Amino acid sequence: MQIAKVRGTVVSTQKDPSLRGAKLLLLQFIDESGQLLPTYEVAADISVGAGFDEWVLVSRGSAARKVEGSEERPIDAMVVAIIDTVTVENRPIYSKKDQ
Amino acid sequence: MQIAKVRGTVVSTQKDPSLRGAKLLLLQFIDESGQLLPTYEVAADISVGAGFDEWVLVSRGSAARKVEGSEERPIDAMVVAIIDTVTVENRPIYSKKDQ
Amino acid sequence: MQIAKVRGTVVSTQKDPSLRGAKLLLLQFIDESGQLLPTYEVAADISVGAGFDEWVLVSRGSAARKVEGSEERPIDAMVVAIIDTVTVENRPIYSKKDQ
Amino acid sequence: MQIAKVRGTVVSTQKDPSLRGAKLLLLQFIDESGQLLPTYEVAADISVGAGFDEWVLVSRGSAARKVEGSEERPIDAMVVAIIDTVTVENRPIYSKKDQ
Amino acid sequence: MQIAKVRGTVVSTQKDPSLRGAKLLLLQFIDESGQLLPTYEVAADISVGAGFDEWVLVSRGSAARKVEGSEERPIDAMVVAIIDTVTVENRPIYSKKDQ
Repeated sequence: MQIAKVRGTVVSTQKDPSLRGAKLLLLQFIDESGQLLPTYEVAADISVGAGFDEWVLVSRGSAARKVEGSEERPIDAMVVAIIDTVTVENRPIYSKKDQ
Repeated sequence: MQIAKVRGTVVSTQKDPSLRGAKLLLLQFIDESGQLLPTYEVAADISVGAGFDEWVLVSRGSAARKVEGSEERPIDAMVVAIIDTVTVENRPIYSKKDQ
Repeated sequence: MQIAKVRGTVVSTQKDPSLRGAKLLLLQFIDESGQLLPTYEVAADISVGAGFDEWVLVSRGSAARKVEGSEERPIDAMVVAIIDTVTVENRPIYSKKDQ
Repeated sequence: MQIAKVRGTVVSTQKDPSLRGAKLLLLQFIDESGQLLPTYEVAADISVGAGFDEWVLVSRGSAARKVEGSEERPIDAMVVAIIDTVTVENRPIYSKKDQ
Repeated sequence: MQIAKVRGTVVSTQKDPSLRGAKLLLLQFIDESGQLLPTYEVAADISVGAGFDEWVLVSRGSAARKVEGSEERPIDAMVVAIIDTVTVENRPIYSKKDQ
């Protein structure tokens, strides 16, 4: 999984019917020191309910369709967790409650 | 999923029989600030009907075969939605109706 | 799918038994303006019969095994079409009959 | 598989229910000469029990769900082995017992 | 598939039980002109028996588990062939018997 920050949303009315009801978030990737990278992913959020500026974990590939209700949707990226803390070498590089 | 702009078409008569009837679009990727990137993907469009210059969402990998009618085709990229709006930090970076 | 040019062949006698009879082509990727990139893929060609210097579409990942006869082969890239034309913004950037 | 060093942990309480009980490690990739790269992966560790600073093998994609107990989890990266030795051209570039 | 050279081995005793008996080779990728690239893959070799310095084909992703005996192993890269010759534009760039 990769660490990403919720930056925005993507809205579509004309889409594959199986995508109806799936919230699509624009996620920007974060590097190992906690900085925003110039790369993004549009991921569905079905089971987690992530909010703006939160750090999340995103799973890509067939893993995205292991979330209940997404098995038959053409989705290749899914928000699977809202991150509480990221700790590297015993030092916190992110803590949700400090935001 | 990635955000891409429909730039053109790819036509083939000599192809795997399972690809007959699948429209193939040349998509150019767009970065997180809305600029065209020098990377592309040729994706099938079976259920969406995207037009030139529209911004679309493309799913890659096995997700591409979750669109009805593509389950048994050797396709690794699919147009799954035409984008209405992309919003980042509450500011719109793309709106289809403004194009 | 990506656009690639058939540049050569790879021959192997000592290989996984399931690969017997699968022709292996060396494909060089082509960028969105029609130039050769310094990246390649060795892909099987089972159903298409592509020749040297032709432009082809290559599918990667599990899509490669959706071509009949390759379902149980350890192949991650497949030639799925010989390209007739690539058109971008209504201008042809490649036409097979002009080669 | 890629070689990576265990650098830290990622903790989440609000996550897809199927992820409960899966330990999530922050892994930093290592290049072919044994140096840390500026790229990372958050991987589950279910069957191996890797500790900080150990070198591990990480499998990505659908392979991550071939570890017992992870088949139905939305996980795209898994620690599959703790490395004892890496040997290149008969020279050891890593040995766990020397650490 | 990608072309790679067998450079070394990775040994692990503490690993997912399903990996027992799978030989793990360190492969270094080779570019389209035959030069070693600074990227590698650790791949299993179950059916081929590749030796040091040989050029091989490596399949990645779910293809790696289409080799008999690896279907249920968390492996994302597999040696599927030892290369005899690579020919580009009718010129050989590699021939095993000349090594």
